[in-house]
Amino acid sequence: MPFNYLRTVRFADTDAAGVVFFANYLAICHEAYEESLAAAGINLQAFFKDTGVVVPIAKSEAAYLRPLLPGDKLRIALTPESLSENSFAIRFELFRVTTVEKLAARVRTEHVATSSIKKERVPLPPALAAWVTGG
Amino acid sequence: MPFNYLRTVRFADTDAAGVVFFANYLAICHEAYEESLAAAGINLQAFFKDTGVVVPIAKSEAAYLRPLLPGDKLRIALTPESLSENSFAIRFELFRVTTVEKLAARVRTEHVATSSIKKERVPLPPALAAWVTGG
Amino acid sequence: MPFNYLRTVRFADTDAAGVVFFANYLAICHEAYEESLAAAGINLQAFFKDTGVVVPIAKSEAAYLRPLLPGDKLRIALTPESLSENSFAIRFELFRVTTVEKLAARVRTEHVATSSIKKERVPLPPALAAWVTGG
Amino acid sequence: MPFNYLRTVRFADTDAAGVVFFANYLAICHEAYEESLAAAGINLQAFFKDTGVVVPIAKSEAAYLRPLLPGDKLRIALTPESLSENSFAIRFELFRVTTVEKLAARVRTEHVATSSIKKERVPLPPALAAWVTGG
Repeated sequence: MPFNYLRTVRFADTDAAGVVFFANYLAICHEAYEESLAAAGINLQAFFKDTGVVVPIAKSEAAYLRPLLPGDKLRIALTPESLSENSFAIRFELFRVTTVEKLAARVRTEHVATSSIKKERVPLPPALAAWVTGG
Repeated sequence: MPFNYLRTVRFADTDAAGVVFFANYLAICHEAYEESLAAAGINLQAFFKDTGVVVPIAKSEAAYLRPLLPGDKLRIALTPESLSENSFAIRFELFRVTTVEKLAARVRTEHVATSSIKKERVPLPPALAAWVTGG
Repeated sequence: MPFNYLRTVRFADTDAAGVVFFANYLAICHEAYEESLAAAGINLQAFFKDTGVVVPIAKSEAAYLRPLLPGDKLRIALTPESLSENSFAIRFELFRVTTVEKLAARVRTEHVATSSIKKERVPLPPALAAWVTGG
Repeated sequence: MPFNYLRTVRFADTDAAGVVFFANYLAICHEAYEESLAAAGINLQAFFKDTGVVVPIAKSEAAYLRPLLPGDKLRIALTPESLSENSFAIRFELFRVTTVEKLAARVRTEHVATSSIKKERVPLPPALAAWVTGG
């Protein structure tokens, strides 16, 4: 079951075209990721300090389906998905919420666990692996 | 009585020094302003379209008292204050919330109602004037 | 031949992980796009006002190959590519420049010319079509 | 004599009001600060790593005099000013450059040298003190 994150579009998310700047759709998805980790008791920064493992984003892709305006209410549905013992993907769906919900964007990111010292791929730390599988 | 806005610090708010970038304290205060207007039934963008009046920020000042980290919970207390028939100020206090609250920043902004066509100062539209005085 | 845009990484581009936030790679590519249009005499905003045509980004994808630190010097190489009479893609390569250049990211965006009134696809205005084909 | 930094306004600097978002004037000034330090051979992040001294911004104030649009050319003039052995201020003037220059904003920041371990004020490291006095 996806994790849901609610968010209101702010002026700082938008640009002079009057709508959310394309790169900020990704930033909003990252907030949903942070919130989902926090809900599982994982603080990204403390986590990285304790395990020496960072989980940078290796790839992203996005389909922008609808413009978003200041004040728009969003629901972001996030579903993690295991890729290997070292990596996972996240699928995000952004919905604009009014009386009905309309899909406004689809985003997908890939994350690779990396030793911050050796700079090589390492297995996902157990807490993160559990988060990916919903355990 | 101040309006309160709750917010979690996100990675995108921070910089390589590990804490919230100084300019982003102001962006977070602007979110509180947008939320307070929305709570009073005012949508900034629709508002400007209907009245032809924009209310740009003419001045800001900020005292940064504590660093803020990703995951920190914030309460922003916002108090508008009338300056003239054309302008108002907002005082913001940002608190970091744990078991106790600690004041992390004080921000003040000044806003001036301006005709977007004539480019001159105009009286605050009634709905905004009512928001300023808490009416 | 690609258009080249030079850029220094700034603190505001980075996050608490110490490196450029993934969404900001896309923002930096958009700067290169704006600069390339400007070099061809196209001002995006005036353009949209004159033609009634907006060219929103419909898709993006990115491969993040190397972390980027504050102070890093970047060269962004941009190559537009025609997709249809209504749309084009841009390929971006971000290089970190020291004594040698290392590829730090690959980004691709798709842009669709849209009538801002009728909300339907329209042919690329001539100046933009000429920019795409390098004419 | 002030240090000068040239910058073009980008879409990502602006918001749905069509002009640069007020907090981003401060971010643009910080770029000028980073560039000025770099010109003096100071890399903020390496610097902090080597000396254990961070120099957070304690205060900012800004007067926003003119709106700035995407594509606008800016010159930011930066003048540091010593406040005490532990602290300095920077005055920034942002000019919009066309055939003539018009002052678009005045910004002032205060920076306090702080030991990142002891969390107390310390004297400015010599390289930074020299930068402040123009030496």
